[in-house]
Amino acid sequence: MKKLKIVTIGGGSGYTPELVEGFIKRYLEMPVTELWLVDVEEGKEKLALVEQLSRRILEKAGSSIQLFTTLNRQEALKDADFVLTQFRIGQMEARIQDENIPLKYETIGQETNGPGELFKAFRTIPVMLDLVKEMEAHCPEAWLINFANPAGMLSEAVLNHSKWTKIISICNGPLSIENDIARVLGVDRRRLYVEFAGLNHLIFAKKVCLDGKDVTEQVINSVADEGAFVDNPGSSDWQPDFLKGLKALPMSYLQYYWKTNEVLASEQYAASHGGSRAVVAQKMDQELFEVYRDQGLMAAPELLRKRGGAGYSEAACDLITSLYTDKRDIQTVNVRNNGAITNLASDVVVEVNCVITSQGPVPLTTGPLPPELNGIIQAMKSYEQVACEAAVTGDYNQALVAMTINPLVSSDSQGKAMLDELLEVHQAFLPQFNQSHIKKGD
Amino acid sequence: MKKLKIVTIGGGSGYTPELVEGFIKRYLEMPVTELWLVDVEEGKEKLALVEQLSRRILEKAGSSIQLFTTLNRQEALKDADFVLTQFRIGQMEARIQDENIPLKYETIGQETNGPGELFKAFRTIPVMLDLVKEMEAHCPEAWLINFANPAGMLSEAVLNHSKWTKIISICNGPLSIENDIARVLGVDRRRLYVEFAGLNHLIFAKKVCLDGKDVTEQVINSVADEGAFVDNPGSSDWQPDFLKGLKALPMSYLQYYWKTNEVLASEQYAASHGGSRAVVAQKMDQELFEVYRDQGLMAAPELLRKRGGAGYSEAACDLITSLYTDKRDIQTVNVRNNGAITNLASDVVVEVNCVITSQGPVPLTTGPLPPELNGIIQAMKSYEQVACEAAVTGDYNQALVAMTINPLVSSDSQGKAMLDELLEVHQAFLPQFNQSHIKKGD
Amino acid sequence: MKKLKIVTIGGGSGYTPELVEGFIKRYLEMPVTELWLVDVEEGKEKLALVEQLSRRILEKAGSSIQLFTTLNRQEALKDADFVLTQFRIGQMEARIQDENIPLKYETIGQETNGPGELFKAFRTIPVMLDLVKEMEAHCPEAWLINFANPAGMLSEAVLNHSKWTKIISICNGPLSIENDIARVLGVDRRRLYVEFAGLNHLIFAKKVCLDGKDVTEQVINSVADEGAFVDNPGSSDWQPDFLKGLKALPMSYLQYYWKTNEVLASEQYAASHGGSRAVVAQKMDQELFEVYRDQGLMAAPELLRKRGGAGYSEAACDLITSLYTDKRDIQTVNVRNNGAITNLASDVVVEVNCVITSQGPVPLTTGPLPPELNGIIQAMKSYEQVACEAAVTGDYNQALVAMTINPLVSSDSQGKAMLDELLEVHQAFLPQFNQSHIKKGD
Amino acid sequence: MKKLKIVTIGGGSGYTPELVEGFIKRYLEMPVTELWLVDVEEGKEKLALVEQLSRRILEKAGSSIQLFTTLNRQEALKDADFVLTQFRIGQMEARIQDENIPLKYETIGQETNGPGELFKAFRTIPVMLDLVKEMEAHCPEAWLINFANPAGMLSEAVLNHSKWTKIISICNGPLSIENDIARVLGVDRRRLYVEFAGLNHLIFAKKVCLDGKDVTEQVINSVADEGAFVDNPGSSDWQPDFLKGLKALPMSYLQYYWKTNEVLASEQYAASHGGSRAVVAQKMDQELFEVYRDQGLMAAPELLRKRGGAGYSEAACDLITSLYTDKRDIQTVNVRNNGAITNLASDVVVEVNCVITSQGPVPLTTGPLPPELNGIIQAMKSYEQVACEAAVTGDYNQALVAMTINPLVSSDSQGKAMLDELLEVHQAFLPQFNQSHIKKGD
Repeated sequence: MKKLKIVTIGGGSGYTPELVEGFIKRYLEMPVTELWLVDVEEGKEKLALVEQLSRRILEKAGSSIQLFTTLNRQEALKDADFVLTQFRIGQMEARIQDENIPLKYETIGQETNGPGELFKAFRTIPVMLDLVKEMEAHCPEAWLINFANPAGMLSEAVLNHSKWTKIISICNGPLSIENDIARVLGVDRRRLYVEFAGLNHLIFAKKVCLDGKDVTEQVINSVADEGAFVDNPGSSDWQPDFLKGLKALPMSYLQYYWKTNEVLASEQYAASHGGSRAVVAQKMDQELFEVYRDQGLMAAPELLRKRGGAGYSEAACDLITSLYTDKRDIQTVNVRNNGAITNLASDVVVEVNCVITSQGPVPLTTGPLPPELNGIIQAMKSYEQVACEAAVTGDYNQALVAMTINPLVSSDSQGKAMLDELLEVHQAFLPQFNQSHIKKGD
Repeated sequence: MKKLKIVTIGGGSGYTPELVEGFIKRYLEMPVTELWLVDVEEGKEKLALVEQLSRRILEKAGSSIQLFTTLNRQEALKDADFVLTQFRIGQMEARIQDENIPLKYETIGQETNGPGELFKAFRTIPVMLDLVKEMEAHCPEAWLINFANPAGMLSEAVLNHSKWTKIISICNGPLSIENDIARVLGVDRRRLYVEFAGLNHLIFAKKVCLDGKDVTEQVINSVADEGAFVDNPGSSDWQPDFLKGLKALPMSYLQYYWKTNEVLASEQYAASHGGSRAVVAQKMDQELFEVYRDQGLMAAPELLRKRGGAGYSEAACDLITSLYTDKRDIQTVNVRNNGAITNLASDVVVEVNCVITSQGPVPLTTGPLPPELNGIIQAMKSYEQVACEAAVTGDYNQALVAMTINPLVSSDSQGKAMLDELLEVHQAFLPQFNQSHIKKGD
Repeated sequence: MKKLKIVTIGGGSGYTPELVEGFIKRYLEMPVTELWLVDVEEGKEKLALVEQLSRRILEKAGSSIQLFTTLNRQEALKDADFVLTQFRIGQMEARIQDENIPLKYETIGQETNGPGELFKAFRTIPVMLDLVKEMEAHCPEAWLINFANPAGMLSEAVLNHSKWTKIISICNGPLSIENDIARVLGVDRRRLYVEFAGLNHLIFAKKVCLDGKDVTEQVINSVADEGAFVDNPGSSDWQPDFLKGLKALPMSYLQYYWKTNEVLASEQYAASHGGSRAVVAQKMDQELFEVYRDQGLMAAPELLRKRGGAGYSEAACDLITSLYTDKRDIQTVNVRNNGAITNLASDVVVEVNCVITSQGPVPLTTGPLPPELNGIIQAMKSYEQVACEAAVTGDYNQALVAMTINPLVSSDSQGKAMLDELLEVHQAFLPQFNQSHIKKGD
Repeated sequence: MKKLKIVTIGGGSGYTPELVEGFIKRYLEMPVTELWLVDVEEGKEKLALVEQLSRRILEKAGSSIQLFTTLNRQEALKDADFVLTQFRIGQMEARIQDENIPLKYETIGQETNGPGELFKAFRTIPVMLDLVKEMEAHCPEAWLINFANPAGMLSEAVLNHSKWTKIISICNGPLSIENDIARVLGVDRRRLYVEFAGLNHLIFAKKVCLDGKDVTEQVINSVADEGAFVDNPGSSDWQPDFLKGLKALPMSYLQYYWKTNEVLASEQYAASHGGSRAVVAQKMDQELFEVYRDQGLMAAPELLRKRGGAGYSEAACDLITSLYTDKRDIQTVNVRNNGAITNLASDVVVEVNCVITSQGPVPLTTGPLPPELNGIIQAMKSYEQVACEAAVTGDYNQALVAMTINPLVSSDSQGKAMLDELLEVHQAFLPQFNQSHIKKGD
C-alpha cells in the first residue's frame, strides 16, 4: 500500500481527536497510513492524553491508520506528505499577557488582533521559518497546512520571507459565515455560492447566490434587521444601516475595527468578571483534558464544539482530501493573491475562494475590492507586511511602526509603551529582538 | 493688451489682500488685467472691507490691475482665465459645530479630519459641482484653482463625479514641510529636492536631496531627535524611533491618526479653555477685519501670517504663474494619479510632485508607497471615495459607512450618533440628504 | 414541468444535429423543453433539412424536447434561457473573398486571422450588437453562448461596446489541445489538468499536470521531438528548439504568426490546386446537406466530425449544462479578464480556465504571461480593440490602423489596398462604413 | 578646483570631437576638469587621430579641460563622475554581417531592428555587464550615459540583470522628431511641449502643445498630408489615413514594422547598388577620419552632421549638464518605467519624458498607451526581455524564441536558419553561447 503520512505539529492540541475522526471518515477517499503527533517537552502530558484518546478512537473504528507520537520534529517530518501546524508559542500564559497588557492601555487585547496579534506573530514567525527549513530538508514535496494563528501573517511570512511555496493557511471563518447565511435563509448550505474576499480574520462575503440567483441584498437585509450572526466579539450586532451601506457581510472579527469601543468595553468587563477570553479558554482546555482522561471516552467530546476553533479540523481534512484527490472543489483559503483581488499586489497573501487541485489552490478572480471594504483590508495588509518584516529582522523601529499603524492602537507613544512592556514579558520567545533592542524600550 | 481675468470665489476672505499683493509682485511674468472678487450676500460686509484694502494696495503700487466685486457669480465667471475658490459653506458657525459635536463623542473634532471634514465635504461638494457646471457655460477654458477644504476631496468629487477636468487643489503643507526641512538642515530651500507623495493633508516627504545628495536619513534623524516640525496639532512631537522606522517625514496632520489620543486630549483641553480652533480662528478673523478697516493700511498686515493658511496665496500665485507661462517647474498639487503612485488606482486624486506646464500639471512617477505609508493612505482614499459618493447621492447608508470607516471614528454606533446629530444641525446646507434621510436618523 | 428554452441563431447550420444529440444525451441533468432553430431567408432550405433530420433524431430517441423553426428571431428569443449563435454573415461567398483577396497581396487569407478575420468581425459585430439589444427586450435573463467567429472579438465587442454582460464565447481549441496532450502522454484526458491562458485562437497550455504532477516539460519535449499536434494550418511542425524555448504549448493557429511564410505558401498552393479552405469547406457542406436529405439518416453523420468545428457542440452542451446545474467544473472560455492574466487590463476579453457556476464563469487566476507569450497576445488584443472600435464606429482611418497593426499585414500601403478592396466587395454587409468611407478607398 | 572627470568608452569614435566641443560650450555651467578617451587595441589608430583633433579644438578654445587617452579601461574609470559609452563590438565588419545575412532570408537587415539588432545585443550586453562591474569597483557614484545601440536593450539588461542602477540610455530620436514638428509648424522648438512615450527607437509623440495649446491633430494632419518627416528608412511616407487613425506621430523607425515590405525592398535595392547602410557608413567613416588627419582642422567638421547620429553628442552633453546642475528640465531618455506608462510593468525600461534632477531622471506619468500604439510596444518589449535573458544566459532555445517572436521574422524555421548563421559568423564575440550551442545550429 502506498504510504500517506500526515504529521501534526502541536499534536497535543485538544483538537487532534477531531482530526483523527476526520481522517477515519475520509479513509476511502484518502487512505492515511501514518499519523504523527509532534509536540514539545512542555506539552508532553497533554500529548499523552491526546494519544490515548486517539488510539481508542482509531481502535473503535477498526482503522488501519498507524499513530505515532514524538518530541523529535525532524524524525516526524521525514517523507511526510502533509504537515499540519496548530501550535501556540508560549502556551496560554503568553496569550494571557497578549490580552491583558493592551487592556492596561485602553486598547483591545486579543490574540488575533491588535498588539496581542502582533506579538503572537513575533513569537511564531521565526518558528515557522525554522520549520519550513526543516521541511526543505526532510519532506520537500509536502504541503504545509497551517491553522496556527495569526494564520494569514504566518503564510505572508513564509511566502515572502522564505523560499517555501507549499503553505496554505486555513480558518473556519468562511465556513461559519456560510453556515450563518444558510441558517438566515433557511436553506441547505450546499445550495449557496458565496464569493469571499479579504484577509484572514478580515474576510467579507461580497456576493451570495442561492441556486445560482444573486440574493446578496436579501441576505444583508435579513442579517441587518434580525442581527443574525453568531459569535460577535462585542455584545451587539452591526448597525443595520451600516451593513446595508457596506453591501457585503463582514466576518464578525471586523467588529474589532468597526465596533472598537463596544468590544473594548466588553473585554474590560470580562477581564474584571472572571477573566479575559484566554482565561476562559484555559479553563475550557483544562476541562477538556479532564474529560480526555476518561478511558471510556471513544470520540471527540461535545465540549470540543464549544471552543472557538470548531470546524478547523473539518476544514483541514477537507482541504487535504481535495489536494490529495485533485478534487477541484472551491474552498476559501490563504494563498498568494496572484491577481485575485486586483487592488492588492500579486505577491501578498489573501483569503479568497480557490479551486483546490493536487497542484495546490488556484485563486478565483474576484476583481477589485470596493472602497467600502478596500480601506481596512489595505490598512491591515500594510500593517501585516511591516509586522512580518519586523518579526524577521527584529528591528525595534519597524516593530514600533507596525504597532502604531495598527488601527487599534491610538498613538505612537501608547504604541511604544505597549511594545516595550510586551517585549519585556515575552523576551524568552523573541531571540530576534536582541537584548539591546529590548533594553532600548526601557 | 491681452485680457487676463482672474476670479476669486469667496473673495471676501481675509486672505485676498495677500493674493492681490501676489499678483502685483508677479506682474511682469503674468500681467493680470482683471481681478474679480465674488462673494455671497452674507459676506457682503467683509467683501467691502477687502475690496477697499485691495484698492489701496493696488493704488499704492501704481498697478493697472482692474478690481471688480460682485455677488453675481455667473457674471464674474464670464471668460475668466483662472477661477480661485476659497469659500466656506456655512461660515464659521458650521465649523464650530464640526469641531464641537464630535468632541461630545470622545472623537476628534476638526474641519479637515474625521466627522468634521466629512460634513465640510457634504456641504461643499454640491456647491463645487454647481460651480463647474457654470464654468462649463461661462469659461470652459479656465483653470479652477481650489484652496477651499477638504481640498483633496473636492478635487476627487469634481474629477470623478463631473465632466470638468481643469481643477487643481493646492495646500501650503508641502511648502511648509520643505521650509521646516530647510530650517533643520540650515540651508536655503532652493538647494533641496523633496519627493512628496500622499493625499491632501496626508502627505509624506519620502526622499530629501540636498544639492542632489540623498540626505533623507539625516533629516529624519534630526527631526526625530530634535522634534523640529512646527505646527503639530497635538502638544508633542513624534516618537523618535517611530519616525526612524517610518523612513519618511509625515505632514503634521498625520498626528490626527498616529497621535489620536494626544490630539484629542489637546482639543478637549482647548475646548474647555477658551474654545476650539474654530473659535480662536473666528476671533482672529474679527481682529483681522478690524485692522482692515484702518484706511491707512496699505498692505496685507502681519497678523495675516499668523493664521493657518499662511502660504496659500503664495502657492496659488506660483501655480497660476507657472500655468500661464508654461514654466515647467515642480510643484506639489492635487491631481489625478495617472500612475504616479503605483499602488493607487489611476483615476483617484493624489497630492504629488508635478511639472506645471501650460497644459496643466503632469505628475512625476514616485513608485509604490512602502507598506509603512500605504495603509493609512489607502484607508483614507477609500474613505474619501465613499464620502464623495455619499455627498453626491445623499445616500444615508453610504454616509454612515463613510463615517464609520474613517479611522478617527470608533464604531458604527458612535458613527451613527454623530452622523445624525451633524445631519440635523447642518440640514440647511445639505439639500442632497433629503428630509426623510435626516428623519431616519431620529 | 419547468420550461427550459434554448434558441440557436443560425439554426440551419450543419452542426445543429450534433447539438440536438447533445441535449438528448444530457436530458437527465438538463431537461430542455423547447429548442428553437432560427435562420434567415437565405438559409431557409438548409434550415428545413436540418429540421427534418433533427426531428428524426428526436423521434428515434423518444425525446420530449419540442422543436421549433422560424425566420422570426424576436419571436424565438422570447423568454429564452440560452441563446446560441453560430451564424455566418455573408455565407460562404463572403468567406471565399476573405480568403482570396489577401492572397493577391501575398498575405495570409483566413477567416479567423489577418484581413479575413478583420472583415468577418466588421460584418458580424453589428449583428451581434443588434442581437443583444433584442435579448435585453425579450430575454434579459438569458445567457448568450457564442460560437460564431471571430469568437473572442465578438465577446470583446459585446462586453465593451454594449450593456449586455451575459455572453460567453467558446472554442473547441482548448479541448482539442487537451486531447492531443492526452494522446501524447497515452493517458485518459481526465487525469490531466491543463492551465490555459491567452486569447481565442491564440491560446497556450502554460502548465500540464498529470495526476497532480507537473509534466509540462515532458509534454513539450515529446511534442517538440515527435511533432504530435494535429490540425496545423501549415504543412510542418514547430521547430523543436523553439517549442522548448517557449516553455508552453501554443495552439496550432499560432502558426499563422510564427510560421507565416510556411502557412502562406501552403495556402497559395491550395488556392492554385482546388481552392482555398473556404472552397473545400463549401464542398464539404454541400456533401453534408446531401447526406442530410437521406430520410433514413437518424443521427449526426460521421462526415460532420471531419469539419473544423468538431467538438463545438460538445463544448456548448457542456457549458450550458454547467451553467444550468451550477456544476462548478473548470472549462476554458472567453470572458472578461478581471485579473486572471495580470499583464492584461481587467476589462478585456481573454480565454482562460474558469469555474462554471450558475452565476456564470469565474476566471481562475493565472498570473502574468511570461514575455515569450506576452508579446503576441498583447499585440493581438490591441489589434482586436482597435478593430472592434472601427467595427462599431465605421471609422475608415481606424479600420486602416487595425488592418496595418495586424501582425500578418506587411505595411500601411498594402493594408490600405486590401482594406479598400474588401470594403468594396463586402459593402452590402457593412452599413456602418458608409458610402463616403468606401468611396474614400477609391 | 573640484575635479569633474568624464570618461568615454569608445573614445576613438568619430563623434568624440563633437563631445569635446559640447563640453567647452557648457564649461560655465559644468566645468569639466578631465576628459578620458578609452578605446581598444583595434581602435588605437582612430583614437590617436581623434585625440589630436580634440587637442587642437581644446587649444584653440583656450580650454583648461585636460585630455587623456588610454587602452586601460579600469585606470580610466577610477573616480569618474560620468562614463559615456559609444562603442561598437565587432566594429563595422560585424554590422555588415548583421545587415547582409538577414537579407539573404528576405528579412530586414538593420543594426537596431530585427535579427541584426538581436546579435548586436548578444555581442554588446556581456560587455556592458562587465563594464558596470568595473564601475562598481572604481567609480560607484558615477552615472553611466549610454549611447551605444541597441540603447534601450542595454539599459534593460543592466537594470534587470545587474545591480547597477545609474544608467541612462539616450537617443537623438525624440529631439529630431521635435525639430521636425517645429519645422512643420514653422515655429521655434522651445515653444513646443511634446509628450513622448514608447521604447528606444520605437517612440511616439502622443501629444504636441504649442504655447500650451494642444495642436496634436493639426500636426498629424500636416505631417500626413505633406509627408514632412525626414530620415525615413523606406522611400516613402506614411499613408495619411493611417497616421490620422493612429492619432500619434511615430518615430521613423516604426517603418521597419509598419512598412516592412517597402523598407525591405529599399534595403535590397541598396544592397545591390553600392551596398547596405553599413557599407555607406563605413565609407563615410573613412572619409571622416581622412579629414581628421588634416592638422589644420580645428573643429568637428560639417561632414559629421551628415551621419545618422547627429545630435547624439548634443543630447549627451545636455543630459550630463542637467544631472550635474540639478537643472530639472525635461528630457526624453531611457529609464525604468516606474508607472510612467501604466500598461507596462514597473521595472522595464521605457523611453519617456523625465525631469532631470541631480538624483537622476524622474519619469513623468503618461498614462496607458492607447491600443493603437500598445500592441507593437508590448510585442517589442517582450521580445527585448527574452533577448536580454538569452544574451545573459547564452541559452540557444531562448535565443531562437527571441528571434522568432521578433515581428520582422517570418517563422521559427527561418528564424533558426538566421540564428545559426549569425551565431557562426559572430562566434568570436559570443562567449556566452558556448561551442556546443553554436554546434547545435549546424
